Amino acid sequence: MSSTRTDPVDAVEAARAAFARGEPVLIHDAADREGEVDIVYPAAAVDPDAVSRLRNDAGGLICVALSDGVAETWELPFLADALEHPAAEAAHLDYDDRSSFSLPVNHRETFTGITDDDRALTIRELGAAADAADDGEFDADAFAEAFRSPGHVTLLRGAPNLLADRRGHTELGLALAAAADREPAAVVCEMVDGETGEARTPADARAYAEREGLVYVEGRDLLTRLG
Amino acid sequence: MSSTRTDPVDAVEAARAAFARGEPVLIHDAADREGEVDIVYPAAAVDPDAVSRLRNDAGGLICVALSDGVAETWELPFLADALEHPAAEAAHLDYDDRSSFSLPVNHRETFTGITDDDRALTIRELGAAADAADDGEFDADAFAEAFRSPGHVTLLRGAPNLLADRRGHTELGLALAAAADREPAAVVCEMVDGETGEARTPADARAYAEREGLVYVEGRDLLTRLG
Repeated sequence: MSSTRTDPVDAVEAARAAFARGEPVLIHDAADREGEVDIVYPAAAVDPDAVSRLRNDAGGLICVALSDGVAETWELPFLADALEHPAAEAAHLDYDDRSSFSLPVNHRETFTGITDDDRALTIRELGAAADAADDGEFDADAFAEAFRSPGHVTLLRGAPNLLADRRGHTELGLALAAAADREPAAVVCEMVDGETGEARTPADARAYAEREGLVYVEGRDLLTRLG
Repeated sequence: MSSTRTDPVDAVEAARAAFARGEPVLIHDAADREGEVDIVYPAAAVDPDAVSRLRNDAGGLICVALSDGVAETWELPFLADALEHPAAEAAHLDYDDRSSFSLPVNHRETFTGITDDDRALTIRELGAAADAADDGEFDADAFAEAFRSPGHVTLLRGAPNLLADRRGHTELGLALAAAADREPAAVVCEMVDGETGEARTPADARAYAEREGLVYVEGRDLLTRLG
């Protein structure tokens, strides 16, 4: 091939294999959507070094996407529905019908909730709890015993049919988790350029992935292979 | 004086003067509370470079503290009260009675809400709107027309009597804003050590302030002079 673009089938398989091993993957949603690249990890694989990478090299909001099934089990609403405030009505987005935001949480064993150790604990425990919930072993009471809201890690609620319903990083991360046979919980964090603070371009993000030995994948390729 | 510690009266006056000019101030709450240093700006003075500083040199959650009066005008609840989820009940903190978290918002003219430009727009407009609300000229409807929730800047609601009620960064920032005759809206962001991800020690934060030509002030000194 004369193109420098990775073969889509290879890229999706590399992303699936990396996620299965607990490694991060860079996902670009689409030029006509947010046009954003997120760093995405399986939640249970997140340690303080991973939070440091998200904080220093991504720079966006550190969020955990949960499958619709897990969110239902834990009775987690969309924040826009749970708030009766007029600012939450008609919250039209330019790039999608609605925001995936649910509650912001901390694990109850955190202190302030914001250090890398604290956020890693919250995220890792969310991953383990989502895995247990998926097996019918971690209900809403168990969730409320383990986590408090508000906190410093924002939960995102995936669409019920994932990529058939919505094509955000929430659903792309969860579809990759499912394909990799991981827990239905994926950390997503937007990459902004460290200097300019603009969204990282796909070319920049791809160069970062190459420097760091990470997999970069296009949302459209995940959609074709996993959607 | 043989001590290297700045005279408390001088430090508080320097902080007040810096805030009046729209410059950031570093505030340490107390060793027996969060034990955290936050970078704090008057909201209306925040530009994309300021968001870049918060993202790169602080690393915590970028939040905007609003006075009780403004929060009342805009009908902004404490998130813990607005959520009916069991995780929001008995949300005991080790360092205080409760969290100041209110809604997370974006200005409606932002796109994704997460770039430095977008967050600066949200924050600056919150500052201008808080100033207008304080003069009776920006009500809850105007707020909902200008901002949507959920979003990427978390609002914090200050205690009614500020430092007489609570001594968090929310109240320390708002008390400094009042003393500096600024709008009742202050950005606060926790400083975590770039490398270790632990809370920055007061000594480290003070050294950063000296390098950057910024004012560092102890919460107890603000409390004595402004409380």
